[in-house]
Amino acid sequence: MFESAELGRSLSKSEYKSLLPKLRNDLLQAQFAMQSTHSPVIIIIEGVDNAVKGEVVNRLNEWFDTRGVEVNAFGKKSDEEAERPKFWRYWQSLPSRGRMALFSGSWYTGPLIQRTFKELKSSEFDEQMNSINIFERMLADDGAIILKFWLHMSEKYQEKSFKEFEEKEDSRFRVSEADLRLHKCHTEYTSVAKQAVMLTDELHAPWIIIEAEDEYYRDVTVANTILSALNQRLENPVDKGQQEEPVAFVRPPEVGIENTRNVLDKVKLSKELEKSEYNDELKRYQKELNELSWKAFHKKKSMVLLFEGWDAAGKGGVIRRVNQAIDARVSRVISVAAPTDEELSHHYLWRFWRHIPKAGHVTMYDRSWYGRVLVERVEGFATDNEWGRSYGEINEFEKQLTDHGIVLCKFWLHIDKDEQLARFKEREVTPYKQHKITDEDWRNRDRWDDYEIAISDMVAKTSTNYAPWTLVPGTSKLYARIQILKTICKTLKKALKNSE
Amino acid sequence: MFESAELGRSLSKSEYKSLLPKLRNDLLQAQFAMQSTHSPVIIIIEGVDNAVKGEVVNRLNEWFDTRGVEVNAFGKKSDEEAERPKFWRYWQSLPSRGRMALFSGSWYTGPLIQRTFKELKSSEFDEQMNSINIFERMLADDGAIILKFWLHMSEKYQEKSFKEFEEKEDSRFRVSEADLRLHKCHTEYTSVAKQAVMLTDELHAPWIIIEAEDEYYRDVTVANTILSALNQRLENPVDKGQQEEPVAFVRPPEVGIENTRNVLDKVKLSKELEKSEYNDELKRYQKELNELSWKAFHKKKSMVLLFEGWDAAGKGGVIRRVNQAIDARVSRVISVAAPTDEELSHHYLWRFWRHIPKAGHVTMYDRSWYGRVLVERVEGFATDNEWGRSYGEINEFEKQLTDHGIVLCKFWLHIDKDEQLARFKEREVTPYKQHKITDEDWRNRDRWDDYEIAISDMVAKTSTNYAPWTLVPGTSKLYARIQILKTICKTLKKALKNSE
Repeated sequence: MFESAELGRSLSKSEYKSLLPKLRNDLLQAQFAMQSTHSPVIIIIEGVDNAVKGEVVNRLNEWFDTRGVEVNAFGKKSDEEAERPKFWRYWQSLPSRGRMALFSGSWYTGPLIQRTFKELKSSEFDEQMNSINIFERMLADDGAIILKFWLHMSEKYQEKSFKEFEEKEDSRFRVSEADLRLHKCHTEYTSVAKQAVMLTDELHAPWIIIEAEDEYYRDVTVANTILSALNQRLENPVDKGQQEEPVAFVRPPEVGIENTRNVLDKVKLSKELEKSEYNDELKRYQKELNELSWKAFHKKKSMVLLFEGWDAAGKGGVIRRVNQAIDARVSRVISVAAPTDEELSHHYLWRFWRHIPKAGHVTMYDRSWYGRVLVERVEGFATDNEWGRSYGEINEFEKQLTDHGIVLCKFWLHIDKDEQLARFKEREVTPYKQHKITDEDWRNRDRWDDYEIAISDMVAKTSTNYAPWTLVPGTSKLYARIQILKTICKTLKKALKNSE
Repeated sequence: MFESAELGRSLSKSEYKSLLPKLRNDLLQAQFAMQSTHSPVIIIIEGVDNAVKGEVVNRLNEWFDTRGVEVNAFGKKSDEEAERPKFWRYWQSLPSRGRMALFSGSWYTGPLIQRTFKELKSSEFDEQMNSINIFERMLADDGAIILKFWLHMSEKYQEKSFKEFEEKEDSRFRVSEADLRLHKCHTEYTSVAKQAVMLTDELHAPWIIIEAEDEYYRDVTVANTILSALNQRLENPVDKGQQEEPVAFVRPPEVGIENTRNVLDKVKLSKELEKSEYNDELKRYQKELNELSWKAFHKKKSMVLLFEGWDAAGKGGVIRRVNQAIDARVSRVISVAAPTDEELSHHYLWRFWRHIPKAGHVTMYDRSWYGRVLVERVEGFATDNEWGRSYGEINEFEKQLTDHGIVLCKFWLHIDKDEQLARFKEREVTPYKQHKITDEDWRNRDRWDDYEIAISDMVAKTSTNYAPWTLVPGTSKLYARIQILKTICKTLKKALKNSE
């Protein structure tokens, strides 16, 4: 979920300086325009590092006209606050219509910290997230714009910066006792935050994960995202009493050419595998998978394998090798093409529910429910509202599968644009491969950049603790097949062991 | 919550027979018209008695064209079902667009039974209700019409009818072992059902409580409600991909003149109190309340008292007597008039949150947040969507208050229309009372019937276990005052005892 915020994005000081004048002017214009609307603006800044949260809030406060902005930080409760129900102090801090409130820390901070230190049980934490959902939905129904930023820094970076702070005498005051205590648990804190983001990322109150190691990039990107959300609302203002149909919030283009990277860039495409080594490993892992799948059958452990990837990335070849390993009596491959009439006349998840394997069986999906947020999003077959809300629906669906004990593996088979071109051309000139290349493939290729955004959102929003994505480099087909077989074996073995 | 379904509504056989031809024709027409829309129709029939649920489903199945209807009953899971995640069997039973599914029992039945027999913890039950909310929201977002009926029968009636069944040899087959076991816990079952209704009564999937003792009334009312919901959707069809703004489902007018009664009819307006007795009791309960409120102050136990009622019902006089009993240093009265500009520029609950008392203090609201579902609904100041969603918001708000330990009493002061008229007239001729009667009072009076519906919905939807309504007969002002003082004392005393 936070993978896409560890890509090393940054802005140079000169780039930053050249962007500022227009950005600041646009922010002010948007702020002034908002003032005559019905919508209060609620901006939450969360993250592991309190000092960093404060920096961002101060920067935003500087860039906006402070007369229309309130800044809220929540420390220990005052007596007044402690004597009233938990949400009382948040109600007191809500901005009125047309105004903006910046929250350095928020209604999330308490539950996040308490859960990190195990002062809250998992079910209590879920309950609190549910209360927050109800609270935010109520505000959004009433017209509020709610944006929630998570400032993400890699573990390594955190270790380093905390050390520096501790060492430098003059920055010590920035690191409080509580901060130090939290720092020691930052892995747990990040994992709890992931959970919170997953449970409360709603169309009407989206989480936006910001790569926060470079302060120029961080501040400009937060500001630019707010600007984009304000302008989106200004184009479709909500009247008093009228509820807006929430639409997916699409992040604005990255600032700085260097930063248009996504999570796919981290896939090491250069991975290779010798043919002879491949033959050995294929035999080995197919045998292992065969044995494991029989064991799973007898233990009534089901498995769902899901394959997505670029056209010509080699999905078919992978699925064939996996399928060879599992007895046909317990496995089936579902090829997902355009939906039938009957399927269209149900909720889009219906056709995937149908094929959920029974106890001990395996279903392989050649393309899957992720079509909703890939082709249907890119081609406009689904509305912004439809694909936007489907991330949550998919997460819930996969949670029901894994809660039931089903082993779920999700693979994205990755190649780059050049490799795809080479494969398309080869298909065109190889007689027995010609049927594999159609006009549609070329059309999809034209929309490569749109797909990259969609894939990167997909991974960010649906790579959960219980159903993570595996991104597989596909330049070497041999390497990819072995990687995938290995991953399936490893996952299944672990699941069988856990259920012993 | 179920009070409004114990009013003794019924239909005579001849009335029933005279209604049938038109009703059945209308149902068929609506069903045929739905078939060309994008909306599947999901109708859930739940209740304490399995046999009765079955009767209603059979009746509906008879009245609709069976070619467009599927009937689903869920008993023990089949092997196929048990081997897959819990919701799999429900997904298999979902109707396609334009078709209708009748559910005798549903995704609610399992959790209701398990919670009744304490096989589920309270938090697990809440979690399951939350999953159901997500599931139903997903279907509704996709265009489904979801109607959930609860067939309510009083405890007394249940006892009687079960006894009859047990005695009659030929009806024994209707009462299964499981039914008998459930019957023995019907009080718990009803209480769990109340909880479920509260947690899952959503604009897009409303619960409709049906008084189910008389079968003619029951069947006609269920059918008539479905008809009304179908017609409402047919007037505003949802296009594929477009999400409907959910609006409050307003029950159609009752069938049969006799049945236009509501929960206020149960208030015994004839209650009287002698002046001398009143004087004694007033002294006694004011003294008790004074002592209790000081005790509460020292124990930091806060209290919120809320007074609603018809114009001229005597709210002012009651509040004065309560206020006299409590020291002015720890209490305040908030008179709720039209909102100020500042209040209007926030969420409507904001102005009530402001005055939540601090520890040990008392806030009395002379009119309250219920204005949203009373005057704002009746006068159209709030849209159907706004007042419709506010029942849930209010329940959540009051839950936060009571969870925090605040003692909450809600009073509706009731008089009938004649009594109001007499009081209005008296005010007009009594010089020192003339300021109390305005044109607005007369205008409100003209909408008496609309208010009755709004009040009755309010009580049905917001009389929760943790914040029940007390309906007080107000014909005798003396009686009303004592009743209210007594109730406050009793509630506060109990709360202080529980917190010892």
